Amino acid sequence: MKIIVLGADGYLGWPTSMDLANKGHQVIAVDNYSRRNIAMQTSSEGLMHTPNLEERAKIFEEVSGKKIDVRIGDLKNYRFLENMVKTFKPDAIVHYAEQPSAPYSLKGYEEAHYTLKNNLEVTHNVIWAVLEHAPDCHLVKLGTMGEYGTPNIDIEEGWLNIEHNGRKGKFLFPRAAGSLYHTTKVLDTDLLWFYVRTFGLRVTDLMQGPVYGLSTTESDMDERLLPNFHYDDIFGTVVNRFLVQAVAGVPLTVYGKGGQIRGYLNLKDTLQCVDLALNNVADKGELRIFNQLTETFTVNELAENVQKAGAALGLNVEVKSIPNPRKEAEEHYYNPKYTGLMDLGLKPNLMTTEVLGEMLKIIIKYKGNIDNEKIFPRVKWNK
Amino acid sequence: MKIIVLGADGYLGWPTSMDLANKGHQVIAVDNYSRRNIAMQTSSEGLMHTPNLEERAKIFEEVSGKKIDVRIGDLKNYRFLENMVKTFKPDAIVHYAEQPSAPYSLKGYEEAHYTLKNNLEVTHNVIWAVLEHAPDCHLVKLGTMGEYGTPNIDIEEGWLNIEHNGRKGKFLFPRAAGSLYHTTKVLDTDLLWFYVRTFGLRVTDLMQGPVYGLSTTESDMDERLLPNFHYDDIFGTVVNRFLVQAVAGVPLTVYGKGGQIRGYLNLKDTLQCVDLALNNVADKGELRIFNQLTETFTVNELAENVQKAGAALGLNVEVKSIPNPRKEAEEHYYNPKYTGLMDLGLKPNLMTTEVLGEMLKIIIKYKGNIDNEKIFPRVKWNK
Repeated sequence: MKIIVLGADGYLGWPTSMDLANKGHQVIAVDNYSRRNIAMQTSSEGLMHTPNLEERAKIFEEVSGKKIDVRIGDLKNYRFLENMVKTFKPDAIVHYAEQPSAPYSLKGYEEAHYTLKNNLEVTHNVIWAVLEHAPDCHLVKLGTMGEYGTPNIDIEEGWLNIEHNGRKGKFLFPRAAGSLYHTTKVLDTDLLWFYVRTFGLRVTDLMQGPVYGLSTTESDMDERLLPNFHYDDIFGTVVNRFLVQAVAGVPLTVYGKGGQIRGYLNLKDTLQCVDLALNNVADKGELRIFNQLTETFTVNELAENVQKAGAALGLNVEVKSIPNPRKEAEEHYYNPKYTGLMDLGLKPNLMTTEVLGEMLKIIIKYKGNIDNEKIFPRVKWNK
Repeated sequence: MKIIVLGADGYLGWPTSMDLANKGHQVIAVDNYSRRNIAMQTSSEGLMHTPNLEERAKIFEEVSGKKIDVRIGDLKNYRFLENMVKTFKPDAIVHYAEQPSAPYSLKGYEEAHYTLKNNLEVTHNVIWAVLEHAPDCHLVKLGTMGEYGTPNIDIEEGWLNIEHNGRKGKFLFPRAAGSLYHTTKVLDTDLLWFYVRTFGLRVTDLMQGPVYGLSTTESDMDERLLPNFHYDDIFGTVVNRFLVQAVAGVPLTVYGKGGQIRGYLNLKDTLQCVDLALNNVADKGELRIFNQLTETFTVNELAENVQKAGAALGLNVEVKSIPNPRKEAEEHYYNPKYTGLMDLGLKPNLMTTEVLGEMLKIIIKYKGNIDNEKIFPRVKWNK
C-alpha cells in the first residue's frame, strides 16, 4: 500500500511509520516539528534525545534496509499537502498531526488558539486533499476516548441507537471532553462525519485511550529508534510519568482522589490497531469508529501496578495525592465497549508487571536525564 | 445594559443593533464587511443599496436621536476584540459574526477553509475575551436549527435525556447538519459547551430557523434603514427568494420535491427572541438553548403561501421544481419543540397573506433592481 503518515515524528507517528515500512508499505512520513517546538518552549523535552525525523529515517534504513520518505512541512499549508496527495495518490493516510497536549491547550489564549486552529485546519485540509485528489483513499484518523468524557451511561463504539417518544434513530455517541485539546477531536469527528455522509469519503476514526510503552519490533533493533518518551506534565501520559517517578525515587503523583478510570493500551497495540484498520478498509460513505483500548484502570490501580513492578526491581515506590489541576470527576461510572478491534483480530499486550518492568529497565538507563521539575503540573484549569 | 453586537452589518445584526439602541441600551456595533465582500465577489448583492454601517448609524441617529457606536474590524484579530471587551465591560454580547451562507461554504476549498476558520476562530476569540475580561458577561449566540438536520426523532430544545442499558444521562441533542456552514455552528456549540461547563460562562444559544421579513419598528421610520435583503442563491433565504421571484414574474424555484420541512420566523420575532434572551440572563455555567422558530412549513407550502399573497396583489405566480443542488432529504419526519421562548413571552408574528403582501409591496418598489441571474443555484453539492 502507499501510505502517508501525518505527524510522523510523534510518539505514535514514528513507530507507526517504521512498522508500516517494515511491513513492506511505501511510506511518506510528514511532520512540522510542532511537538518538538512546544516541548522546547515549555521545557518539556523527552527523557532521551531523539534524532530528527530525517536522521531517524536514515538510521532505520541502515538497520532494516527499508526506506521512509520524509517530508518536513506544515499541513496548514494546503498547497504542500495537496501536492503530496496529488502526486503520490496514497491508498491510505494515517492522521496523527494534531497538538496533543491537554494542559498546553489550556495554558492561555495563544496556546488555546493554536490548538484549535492547528487541529481543525489540518483535519479540514486532509479532508479536502482526499476529496479533490484521492477520493478513494482510506483516512485513518486518531481520535481519543477523551472525546466521550465520563458519561453516566455505557460508552458504545462511536454510535448510539436512540429511542425517543416512540421513534428511533442512530446518532454519533454524545461527546463531552475534558480539555480543549480533547474537544478539538470532538470537532474533528463532527467535521469528518459531515464530509463522509455528504461526499462519500472512507474514514476510520480510532478513539484511543492513553498509550504507554517504549518498545516495538523496530525500536528493539536500535535504541536510537525509540519513540520520544515524555514524562512531563505537558506531553507525558500518566503511566509513562509514574514509571519515571518510580525510577527517580519521587512519589507517584496521583491527581486528586485517583478514582479516574480510563482505558489504556500498549504502544505495540496501537500499531496492531492501525494495521488492522488499514487492512480492513472502511466502505465509501462510512465513518467507522472503534474504541481503541485493551483494559481499564483507575489512576490508583495504575499507581499500584507501577509500585509492584518497581518492587520486583528493588525500587521502593511511594504514592502521593496532589490537588487535581484538571476539572474532571474523580469518582465516576465508566463502561466503554471495545470489541470492534478485537473482532478484527487484535491480540492485546496487557499491562503486566513484566511489561512495566521492561519499561523500567530502559528508563533506569536514562535515569541521569530525569528532571523532577518537569513532572509537576504547571497548568491548572480547575479553578 | 451595555451590549456589543458582533456582525452588526448583517441581515439580523443591523436590525438588532437599532432595536437595542432604541430600547435605551448602550450599543457597540462591530463588523468587518465580510458579507458585503463575499456578495461583491460572488455577484450576490442585495435587492436595494444599503449604506455602510457608519452611514447607517448616522441616519439612525438623525431619525431616532439614539447613538450606535460603530467599530469596523476583524474579530479574528484577538487584540481588536479584547481591547473592546476590556474597556467597555459589556453586560452582554450578541454574536452573529459568522459566514452564514451554506452554498458559499461548499463552493470550493478556499470558501470552505474561510468559513471554518472565520466562524470557529471568531467564536473562540469571543469566548476568551469574555473569560479574560468580562467573565460575568452574558453571551447570546446565534446558532441554527440546521445544526440538528432532519432526524427521525422529535427535536428537543438543545438537550436530550437518554436512557441506555438501564442508566440515564443528559446530553446535547445529537446534531448532523446539511452544509459546512451549518456544521461550523455544530462545532461552535461543542466549543461553547466545553467552556461553559469548564469555566462557568453564561451562554444562550439560539437555534434559529430561516428568517424572512424586511420591516421592523426602526426600518419603518426611514427606508434607508432597511436590512440588507438578499434574494440570490448565496445569501437569500427561501421565503425572501420566492417573494422576489413572484415580483419578477419568474416561477418560484422549488428544490426537488419540495417536501423539506423547516421552522420559520419573522425578522420581528428574531428581535423579540434576542431581547427576551438578554432580559433573562443564563446562569453561570449554564448553556441555555432555545429553538427559535414560530411555525413549520414544507417548501411547497411556502410556495403556496407566496402564490396566495401574490394573487391578492394581482400577481400571477407560478411554481416550478428544479433539481436540488443540496444534499438533503426531500421527504422526512420533522417535529421540533419550541416552547422555551414562548414561555419567556414571545408573541409570534405569523406568516399570513397580509405579512407576505406587505413584503411584496416593498419589493415591487425595487423591482427594477432584480437580476434574475442571481436567483438560480450556482453551487451544487448533491453529486
